[in-house]
Amino acid sequence: MLATYLEQGAVSLRQTALPSIAPGFALLKLRLAGICNTDLELQRGYYGFSGIPGHEFVAEVVECADASWIGKRIVGEINLACGQCSWCDRDLGRHCPNRTVLGIVKHPGAFAEYLSLPVENLHAVPEDMPDEVAVFTEPVAAASAILEQVSISPGTPVAVLGDGKLGLLCAMVLALHGAQVSLYGRHPEKTAIAARMGVVPREASEAGDTQYPIVVEATGNADAMATAIRMTEARGKIIMKSTTHLPVSVDMASVIVPEISLIGSRCGRFSDALPLLAAGMLPVREMIHAEYHLHEAPAAFERAAQKGTLKVLLRP
Amino acid sequence: MLATYLEQGAVSLRQTALPSIAPGFALLKLRLAGICNTDLELQRGYYGFSGIPGHEFVAEVVECADASWIGKRIVGEINLACGQCSWCDRDLGRHCPNRTVLGIVKHPGAFAEYLSLPVENLHAVPEDMPDEVAVFTEPVAAASAILEQVSISPGTPVAVLGDGKLGLLCAMVLALHGAQVSLYGRHPEKTAIAARMGVVPREASEAGDTQYPIVVEATGNADAMATAIRMTEARGKIIMKSTTHLPVSVDMASVIVPEISLIGSRCGRFSDALPLLAAGMLPVREMIHAEYHLHEAPAAFERAAQKGTLKVLLRP
Repeated sequence: MLATYLEQGAVSLRQTALPSIAPGFALLKLRLAGICNTDLELQRGYYGFSGIPGHEFVAEVVECADASWIGKRIVGEINLACGQCSWCDRDLGRHCPNRTVLGIVKHPGAFAEYLSLPVENLHAVPEDMPDEVAVFTEPVAAASAILEQVSISPGTPVAVLGDGKLGLLCAMVLALHGAQVSLYGRHPEKTAIAARMGVVPREASEAGDTQYPIVVEATGNADAMATAIRMTEARGKIIMKSTTHLPVSVDMASVIVPEISLIGSRCGRFSDALPLLAAGMLPVREMIHAEYHLHEAPAAFERAAQKGTLKVLLRP
Repeated sequence: MLATYLEQGAVSLRQTALPSIAPGFALLKLRLAGICNTDLELQRGYYGFSGIPGHEFVAEVVECADASWIGKRIVGEINLACGQCSWCDRDLGRHCPNRTVLGIVKHPGAFAEYLSLPVENLHAVPEDMPDEVAVFTEPVAAASAILEQVSISPGTPVAVLGDGKLGLLCAMVLALHGAQVSLYGRHPEKTAIAARMGVVPREASEAGDTQYPIVVEATGNADAMATAIRMTEARGKIIMKSTTHLPVSVDMASVIVPEISLIGSRCGRFSDALPLLAAGMLPVREMIHAEYHLHEAPAAFERAAQKGTLKVLLRP
């Protein structure tokens, strides 16, 4: 099969064998995949990754012990948990210490004609949901994780810093939940997408003028933490979504005196994300900036890395 | 009256006028005061402080519009809140943006023969509680703040990093609450005090071998944050008690991937602390390393700053 391969910063294409299907696993034929900032970080070598990347996808089940899955259109949770540890017992396989992660840690990813996942990771896509919407399930789940970690009452003022892909989705998911969201960004054409959901677009330069009980830091920029702290009320919460790989310098007194909480936030549950997408309220298709054929993956990675680009898709 | 005075790093003694008593305030005659690390930081000039320091104290009410207070032995909350803002409405005057703070921000402190506080800040000391115990109310309240911010079920494993005054009190208060506390420190004679409460003493060099759902960082050392992060389970919480004034470098990915929360924690409620002290279960008197007369305040500050010193008291 055709597969995208990352090695030492280079994106290439290879012909590889089909994934072998262990008991309990399904063989999936890719329909559509999305390039995420994590893929670009893997390319930059942050995790010493080499292999097939990709973890945002929609696929069709082509092989599975449970025949009822075959032919179904699915999305799939990216953490392959052991199912036997205390984390898995608590339905937190996303933190299972023995897990592998699709396209990130020791499990070949979705930027290939075929991939494999355990059947328990699969979620059927509703029939009337287009692939171009379903492909956003993983990042919408990551945005929804905020609501799993922090209780946000309707009407609560929330600031989201950063109008990249994740910032936009966080702003829109929280607005849909009823929060009164201000989105600070540098690209009016991007904040305008969230504005359709009632999110108030604000210039990044205004950040710091107002304090909020909840601030979501999604700029991807190590320097933004100080701004986020300045924008947070006493006893307020900062949701940290920027997995930057530079060490961040924090003035701890500015966190401790006002008793602020900094909350790391990463993956969420697909079961939370799919109903939001099914409701058709999130204008995720407007976030698609380009689509490439899988054999153009190197060009697609180049495009995704350009400043200001939102979602770039890969189609086999 | 005799008062300790801090200015540009120097501790001196001055004769000053008695505090003037505004309506709603009480005049308090000092009985006993304690030197806290914050006082040493004020001395080092971190807040541009000059004036009378001191916020841990026991005093007698000598003047008050409400005569029922006169002659009473009291301890006093250190934040002087405006009583009119949304923070005060929520019983969080400790975060009132208009507040002054006894001996820290724009209100003369307790290292003097007399001080003043609003009557609503006063708490009567139970008759059978010695001054040497009551003087620990403020730091025990700071330790108790953890329980106000984070829910800790009995039996929960907790690591406390740092066997200084605040680390010891945090370990003992959490042990009293039923947590299964390990205290990491460098001074066996100090960790032994907490061991009497069932706290497990551990060598600081062992820190990092085990992971905990809750870690209290109370070393006062900027470098300890990386250790605290390494010692925290996925979805775990780090209570940050070290108001160090050096910027702390944090590898945010190591916080975000395991979805750890960093929770700034500072002052607590006296109403939570007094019953703990009244129960006589906290061996706080063993933490007293020296007592000086008020007119020896410069020597007392010097002693308090010596490595390994626990509580130093000042008596008028």
